[in-house]
Amino acid sequence: MDFPPLAVSLGDPAGVGPELIAAAWARREAEELLPFFVAGGAEILRAAAQTRGLYLPVTEIFHPAEALDLFDHALPVLAGADGDYAAGLPDRAGAELALASLSEATELVRAGEASALITAPIAKARLAEVGFDHPGQTEFVAAACSYAPGDAVMMLAGPQLRTVPLTVHVALKDVPGLITPALIERKARIVAMALYRDFGIAKPRIAVAALNPHAGEGGRMGREDIDVLAPVIAALAAEGIAITGPHPADGLFTAHARQSFDVALCMYHDQALIPLKALDFDSGVNVTLGLPVVRTSPDHGTAFGIAGQNTADPGATIAAIRMAGLCALRRAGLYED
Amino acid sequence: MDFPPLAVSLGDPAGVGPELIAAAWARREAEELLPFFVAGGAEILRAAAQTRGLYLPVTEIFHPAEALDLFDHALPVLAGADGDYAAGLPDRAGAELALASLSEATELVRAGEASALITAPIAKARLAEVGFDHPGQTEFVAAACSYAPGDAVMMLAGPQLRTVPLTVHVALKDVPGLITPALIERKARIVAMALYRDFGIAKPRIAVAALNPHAGEGGRMGREDIDVLAPVIAALAAEGIAITGPHPADGLFTAHARQSFDVALCMYHDQALIPLKALDFDSGVNVTLGLPVVRTSPDHGTAFGIAGQNTADPGATIAAIRMAGLCALRRAGLYED
Repeated sequence: MDFPPLAVSLGDPAGVGPELIAAAWARREAEELLPFFVAGGAEILRAAAQTRGLYLPVTEIFHPAEALDLFDHALPVLAGADGDYAAGLPDRAGAELALASLSEATELVRAGEASALITAPIAKARLAEVGFDHPGQTEFVAAACSYAPGDAVMMLAGPQLRTVPLTVHVALKDVPGLITPALIERKARIVAMALYRDFGIAKPRIAVAALNPHAGEGGRMGREDIDVLAPVIAALAAEGIAITGPHPADGLFTAHARQSFDVALCMYHDQALIPLKALDFDSGVNVTLGLPVVRTSPDHGTAFGIAGQNTADPGATIAAIRMAGLCALRRAGLYED
Repeated sequence: MDFPPLAVSLGDPAGVGPELIAAAWARREAEELLPFFVAGGAEILRAAAQTRGLYLPVTEIFHPAEALDLFDHALPVLAGADGDYAAGLPDRAGAELALASLSEATELVRAGEASALITAPIAKARLAEVGFDHPGQTEFVAAACSYAPGDAVMMLAGPQLRTVPLTVHVALKDVPGLITPALIERKARIVAMALYRDFGIAKPRIAVAALNPHAGEGGRMGREDIDVLAPVIAALAAEGIAITGPHPADGLFTAHARQSFDVALCMYHDQALIPLKALDFDSGVNVTLGLPVVRTSPDHGTAFGIAGQNTADPGATIAAIRMAGLCALRRAGLYED
């Protein structure tokens, strides 16, 4: 049997998603992308491609497998949901289309008809208005796989750095109370397994960033690093996991320090995302670890403000498609590092 | 009258300070450094230079002004306190020497006999054992100028980014409670004035980083950005200060976003230092704003572990000396941007 194509969801049709999918297809050869198809939105993709002056032949398909032969010559798009293209002007119909595309793409990956899922950006608040009741696409995909939200781990990956935020969309004041040994252990195990299985790293080196400045400096600036982080890190290391820390976070992302680990476990959103975006803004990928399906997305939002203006950078979308393909090939035993 | 030379304190003699001062002197012409002298430690500087294979003629002087003519041909060092060089092996005598050097250099700058102060790294815990009762050198210099610690603002400056942490050496859990409108206003005013006076920026653009992820996203992830930060930023902007925010911190340090401001006001230590060190580790300078004297230091510690091994990078020390000279020239009206 052929290796199934990758499934790409359209994202909010008023955002930069459709034009960046078109831009990625246009570079499919240079970037060595595996065949992919888009779940719906054929007319929107055609119109979005025009805003970038891209040649984009679109062929509607009725089954993912059709994408394999077509992909070289046209962008395969599943027939079905579609809409009008209005860059920068999100509306309810667009949110419904985005949700339909996400649902269909996810289901096809879950069923094995596609080998990985790449999700283009959605506007969560708008999708919530049409019945989307998850904090984000990561949790949606987890639920579709019948996994608990906590079993899906968000990793941000750029050319220079990979980070995992242990807490994400919570107020800074709530972070210290949410960091527990159980949380660190659960996420560290998922990360270690996923970097081995999906990224081909035999013994992934995990660096844990400290919660407090200077890792608390002996307890003078907070005791969590000593009382909460250090014991669970030591216990996991004793098991044979290549985990170190807590490391003072300000020194963990220097060019030199970055060579010493494969992924940094961070305590909160900005600790993980500040260094990643400072270093790799235009090529950051959001990868979901721990699920039975491979899922990636570009690490940026809908960017309604620049949609349709031929200025959005397709680097992250291309990187997300490429990374999804490599992860899926590794899971299938078809890629040797 | 000639423009006085710059004063450099020795730092902990067992750390990388002495060897990096020697390395900076060796590059004085290529880096266009203004004449500087070191407060004490002639024998230590000679020995430290040897570990790097540097030619370092040292001439003892008795008054700062003597440095001006000597500097081209030798490193001027104030006669007086000295010790034995033992790289990587800090001891009490070394801490006493570091404190004596810092005190003397500070006093000469305060008295106008030197035009700026550059402090090499000390080990605070060790200096505390010999009577140093300040959180760091910044507060020491402030006290020597009879200024309150809160009037001295630490700015980290690299080639790509300048940041100011509003809170520094405190536990993360204590940060939200310490961020007040009064603190933001006081620091923002000092920063705006100092970037004008010392850095020659006519109307400094200050970007304020949000405390919470996504700046709290309308209050769903913390209300401080709305309730505490936004009103004081608006009030300062209404006065004519070019201040904006609160900006979601993860997007504030991308290559593109960095072009939109001259300095980022950050809420806590790691928020300010993670992006700076990720981007500019080997050339970051710690500048003290708001004091009657100009003071800079390399943004790294004593690095006892690599002292004497000819591996420490002199970039930050050189950048600190150069920046101190430029700031002092601007204050004196001797430099046109």
